[in-house]
Amino acid sequence: MDTKMNIAIIGGDARYLELIRHLTKNPQMDLTIIGYDQLDKGFTGAKQAELEDIEPSKLDAVIIPVPGTDHRGYVETVFSDKQIQLKKDWFHSLKSGCIVFSGITTPFLNEAAGEAALQLVPLFDRDDVAIYNSIPTVEGTIMMAIQNTDFTIHSSNVIILGLGRVGMTLASKFAGLGAHVSVGSKHQSDLARITEMGLTPFTLDDLTTHSPNCDLLINTIPAMVVTREVIQLMKSQALIIDLASKPGGTDFKFAEQRGIKAMPAPGLPGIVAPKTAGAILGRVVSQILTEHISERSK
Amino acid sequence: MDTKMNIAIIGGDARYLELIRHLTKNPQMDLTIIGYDQLDKGFTGAKQAELEDIEPSKLDAVIIPVPGTDHRGYVETVFSDKQIQLKKDWFHSLKSGCIVFSGITTPFLNEAAGEAALQLVPLFDRDDVAIYNSIPTVEGTIMMAIQNTDFTIHSSNVIILGLGRVGMTLASKFAGLGAHVSVGSKHQSDLARITEMGLTPFTLDDLTTHSPNCDLLINTIPAMVVTREVIQLMKSQALIIDLASKPGGTDFKFAEQRGIKAMPAPGLPGIVAPKTAGAILGRVVSQILTEHISERSK
Amino acid sequence: MDTKMNIAIIGGDARYLELIRHLTKNPQMDLTIIGYDQLDKGFTGAKQAELEDIEPSKLDAVIIPVPGTDHRGYVETVFSDKQIQLKKDWFHSLKSGCIVFSGITTPFLNEAAGEAALQLVPLFDRDDVAIYNSIPTVEGTIMMAIQNTDFTIHSSNVIILGLGRVGMTLASKFAGLGAHVSVGSKHQSDLARITEMGLTPFTLDDLTTHSPNCDLLINTIPAMVVTREVIQLMKSQALIIDLASKPGGTDFKFAEQRGIKAMPAPGLPGIVAPKTAGAILGRVVSQILTEHISERSK
Amino acid sequence: MDTKMNIAIIGGDARYLELIRHLTKNPQMDLTIIGYDQLDKGFTGAKQAELEDIEPSKLDAVIIPVPGTDHRGYVETVFSDKQIQLKKDWFHSLKSGCIVFSGITTPFLNEAAGEAALQLVPLFDRDDVAIYNSIPTVEGTIMMAIQNTDFTIHSSNVIILGLGRVGMTLASKFAGLGAHVSVGSKHQSDLARITEMGLTPFTLDDLTTHSPNCDLLINTIPAMVVTREVIQLMKSQALIIDLASKPGGTDFKFAEQRGIKAMPAPGLPGIVAPKTAGAILGRVVSQILTEHISERSK
Ligand SMILES: NC(=O)c1ccc[n+]([C@@H]2O[C@H](COP(=O)([O-])OP(=O)(O)OC[C@H]3O[C@@H](n4cnc5c(N)ncnc54)[C@H](OP(=O)(O)O)[C@@H]3O)[C@@H](O)[C@H]2O)c1
Ligand SMILES: NC(=O)c1ccc[n+]([C@@H]2O[C@H](COP(=O)([O-])OP(=O)(O)OC[C@H]3O[C@@H](n4cnc5c(N)ncnc54)[C@H](OP(=O)(O)O)[C@@H]3O)[C@@H](O)[C@H]2O)c1
Ligand SMILES: NC(=O)c1ccc[n+]([C@@H]2O[C@H](COP(=O)([O-])OP(=O)(O)OC[C@H]3O[C@@H](n4cnc5c(N)ncnc54)[C@H](OP(=O)(O)O)[C@@H]3O)[C@@H](O)[C@H]2O)c1
Ligand SMILES: NC(=O)c1ccc[n+]([C@@H]2O[C@H](COP(=O)([O-])OP(=O)(O)OC[C@H]3O[C@@H](n4cnc5c(N)ncnc54)[C@H](OP(=O)(O)O)[C@@H]3O)[C@@H](O)[C@H]2O)c1
Repeated sequence: MDTKMNIAIIGGDARYLELIRHLTKNPQMDLTIIGYDQLDKGFTGAKQAELEDIEPSKLDAVIIPVPGTDHRGYVETVFSDKQIQLKKDWFHSLKSGCIVFSGITTPFLNEAAGEAALQLVPLFDRDDVAIYNSIPTVEGTIMMAIQNTDFTIHSSNVIILGLGRVGMTLASKFAGLGAHVSVGSKHQSDLARITEMGLTPFTLDDLTTHSPNCDLLINTIPAMVVTREVIQLMKSQALIIDLASKPGGTDFKFAEQRGIKAMPAPGLPGIVAPKTAGAILGRVVSQILTEHISERSK
Repeated sequence: MDTKMNIAIIGGDARYLELIRHLTKNPQMDLTIIGYDQLDKGFTGAKQAELEDIEPSKLDAVIIPVPGTDHRGYVETVFSDKQIQLKKDWFHSLKSGCIVFSGITTPFLNEAAGEAALQLVPLFDRDDVAIYNSIPTVEGTIMMAIQNTDFTIHSSNVIILGLGRVGMTLASKFAGLGAHVSVGSKHQSDLARITEMGLTPFTLDDLTTHSPNCDLLINTIPAMVVTREVIQLMKSQALIIDLASKPGGTDFKFAEQRGIKAMPAPGLPGIVAPKTAGAILGRVVSQILTEHISERSK
Repeated sequence: MDTKMNIAIIGGDARYLELIRHLTKNPQMDLTIIGYDQLDKGFTGAKQAELEDIEPSKLDAVIIPVPGTDHRGYVETVFSDKQIQLKKDWFHSLKSGCIVFSGITTPFLNEAAGEAALQLVPLFDRDDVAIYNSIPTVEGTIMMAIQNTDFTIHSSNVIILGLGRVGMTLASKFAGLGAHVSVGSKHQSDLARITEMGLTPFTLDDLTTHSPNCDLLINTIPAMVVTREVIQLMKSQALIIDLASKPGGTDFKFAEQRGIKAMPAPGLPGIVAPKTAGAILGRVVSQILTEHISERSK
Repeated sequence: MDTKMNIAIIGGDARYLELIRHLTKNPQMDLTIIGYDQLDKGFTGAKQAELEDIEPSKLDAVIIPVPGTDHRGYVETVFSDKQIQLKKDWFHSLKSGCIVFSGITTPFLNEAAGEAALQLVPLFDRDDVAIYNSIPTVEGTIMMAIQNTDFTIHSSNVIILGLGRVGMTLASKFAGLGAHVSVGSKHQSDLARITEMGLTPFTLDDLTTHSPNCDLLINTIPAMVVTREVIQLMKSQALIIDLASKPGGTDFKFAEQRGIKAMPAPGLPGIVAPKTAGAILGRVVSQILTEHISERSK
């Protein structure tokens, strides 16, 4: 019996080159890639194709780009001029049990997968992916901090807001560079962990007592926390980097008025380390599919 | 209106000396201590008394020793020869709203507090306390590792099982000392965090592939994980330290047969750093009571 | 008696703004700055002047730009259109005992100071300055590494050549970011220190056994060490950053032929952190002059 | 031609068991061990013998115990009841070119080797050995600190005096455990390195301004630096650990009067990690002899 999985990758950016490379190494996977016609060299072990060429009913897994689809089913194709649209019909024609992977999910995708009773895996929702991705995110933040200040990270006063998956990595890496790191959180257990890490904890309510002395403020909390009151008290040369997903947690308008540089910084992993970011996805997709195969074969 | 809280500390060990010192610093607390008659010098700000002297109905909080009570209500009194018994009646006579603190809870204590409708706070169940306590726990583990091996922690292969509150602290501190640290966990998100920390992750199922090369194995998982199979493969000079609460997660008997030193290590914080351990409790009790006062006064 | 020192700063770049700010804070220093006419706002506590306005015979110290002078005595003036030339005569007219500070020294400067019997302090030759400067140097290197690769520093294989003042800082900071760091040196004691730091040591003779696996190679040795043989074996996606002073220690030409990106990276502190770089100079100049004053007043 | 080296190990403690194990692994070495008759099991690859049995004129290297000899040539024999004396005559009868290894040297040994024109290698004088040995030294210090205080190293104020080979390791490891580390040194370059490490630097002259706040003071400077004035100001619960070689750098008598615990701590590597300490010696002896062979065969 054939246990090979038929997988189609439809669209994607630089990260997906590494994802493809990763999956082609797995002998159990039969890979077709769509939306890569502009690449000059192919991938050993992956067939290039057009959407029309493949039979949805034979696919075990479909991997669509990180941002999912737009509201009409179009997917991002960085390496092709052709537009690719995945209609609801198409999802319906997929084999039952076919898994659909994306980075984040969108209303259209939720509906399409829901109606077709397919398992949708928005990879970025997974804790492990979020933690692995925190690494390139933090390196991107470090790069921005070095580029946008005239002082060193070392010896500077850095405030990090939130000790979640990204916040934890930020805290340890900025401390590793010699910054004086304070971390604000609403959780008592976070304050304990921050203390154990040798950093300075504070509750978010006390942010205004810490912000006046801060050189670099990095926010990871997806809620309005870097308010007018907080910014008002900051030094004019201080830098704010807001990592939280749109619209961020900073009153950007007020920061501009006050003359304080405040930068949103979306999508850092894909920008600073597409290869690593793709490898992360490759590893996790590979692991999920392998578990799937081993369960199926029981 | 008097907002001072009447607090009784009944029994306790060296940790409670620091706890007492901590609470006496808080002007909002009126402290009576019972079971400390053998101390040569008193505490400024705390009254020594006998159990009979105090009026339970006037108490806002009662702090009993870390281990709670035994099945008849007796509490540990390291600094007194007198036996102190807290009967269920006594709990009933406490003021409604009185908070009862202990380290861990016991069946008797659960019943007594439950029947009297009192709030029982087993401090060690709190995430923040567990994280703060992980610090002296880990220092105790380091001490044991140095004492019980003829090699350095630096450059040795250390396996840590579990990346919970203690496991995380173990991992960072043993890595800080220069050990080659591998951490086993069943959670994918733990494996990601371990990777981010620069350490070697493995799933618990693979423990037997890592144990043969291990010099020091430290367990924090309260389940039988260091089994006969795992021990069988270990080097005879390796050391096992089991931190998990009784009965631990190690087949101690088999380790002995195999000639491998395996040590349970209960209660390290109270042993290696009673002052710090007491300060941790003092800080948290103080914070809980302060919140209580501020809520009461609303 | 007046113990105030007359100090002239003649030319300089962004770093010197911070140097000036630093020295103006010292009430014992009377500061004249030359070559800053294009700045819109002045410095409280420093007088702007032209070279002709000052009396060399009254100066206790002269601070010229980091690169010293060119072979005819011209100094760099980033904040002025006017050209400033310090002739040998001018040095002769300085007070005996006047100290001349620069970053590095040049043949002209050596001669001029030598003939006039003046103490010349090339600040970058000092061990303490080199170590402080290693911090912005390393942050600049980190920025370049993030910008010029598509993978993360974390988990990548980084080779550092030399464990001198810059090499030590590189090693600890790249390790702090989670790289697998190997350091090559010819000194046995360096290999021991690298081991103690938890990193992988190797003797320079073994560089070719480590280079094939390397993702990022950073050189600090001012001698031809990254030779054709070393580069030949490297991965084509690897990056070489050469920090050693001109001409560096890399066969750049061969790297280009091989299609491996190899970048010289001069003057990083002034580029990525002029404020910190200036503060370093300010602190050290301040300390040297203060010692001078206290000795003079004995 | 036979390139095998004849090596005799004469006397020694637990460290030498590992040294022997190390050298027997080298096929180029022919090993005779003297003073190990009480060991129940032998070493594959090493011959046990009495001093009388061996021919000094055939030896290429002689390894005597770490403390060298006493003033009459007696060496320490932990694993034998027999006394072993190495007379000056005996040294004279050694082959010209024979290398004599010990840990430290003694007047007798200097004379004996000098008169016989032999190369004496006191291993502990080597920078690399001192740095490797600093690792078990620091672990021993950590153990003592945990055992002799009732607070955690984490969060405590630790002063380290001297940033030499031991001081550097102390600083990084105590910082790794979460202590607030300050380091005192007389060298400006040390103060810069301490700053780079993220620790607090101070010049030794300022020790009295730092000692009042200190919980743990560790000295590595072999000169009287922890004076009456310094101790006078310390907290009574503070602990002093003096690592400097006899007589140390602490006014122990005054510390006792003041009721402050002050502990000399000689020979930590041999106590806490004899196996590692022996491996360090084995590695270095092996390397020196291998270089010797390769030079001889040129
Ligand atoms: N810019 C980029 O390239 C990039 C990359 C990765 C992630 N991100 C974004 O960064 C943000 C953080 O990601 P993450 O993975 O670290 O998320 P996370 O693990 O959920 O961490 C967020 C932290 O913020 C806390 N928080 C949420 N709402 C709060 C509120 N109203 N007040 C106080 N604390 C609050 C959370 O605590 P509780 O959950 O317990 O409330 C949590 O500790 C997200 O918005 C994510 O999309 C951006
Ligand atoms: N010896 C001492 O002095 C000392 C001091 C402090 C704590 N302790 C003891 O040390 C242990 C760990 O404490 P902690 O605060 O770190 O607890 P914790 O945060 O709950 O960590 C325990 C870890 O083990 C995992 N785990 C539990 N059961 C498992 C199983 N059957 N298989 C695989 N993983 C399992 C948990 O994962 P999930 O919860 O997600 O399953 C968790 O990650 C406890 O027993 C505690 O009482 C001893
Ligand atoms: N790009 C920038 O922005 C920047 C910033 C700062 C410094 N730098 C440059 O970076 C380089 C390193 O600076 P540093 O302060 O770290 O100098 P350093 O402390 O002297 O370190 C250089 C190291 O290289 C070793 N070395 C020198 N020649 C060698 C050879 N032929 N073979 C093997 N090893 C050799 C030295 O050992 P021995 O001395 O014992 O031989 C020393 O350990 C210098 O060229 C400096 O000008 C550049
Ligand atoms: N207890 C143990 O188990 C153990 C183990 C290893 C070493 N030790 C001992 O620990 C001590 C330190 O060893 P080490 O290898 O770190 O030596 P080291 O590298 O020479 O360090 C000693 C430091 O002290 C400085 N120093 C010396 N005399 C001074 C003075 N009068 N004033 C100010 N600073 C002074 C030295 O600076 P300068 O040299 O530049 O003056 C150097 O930085 C030695 O006595 C050694 O024997 C003990």
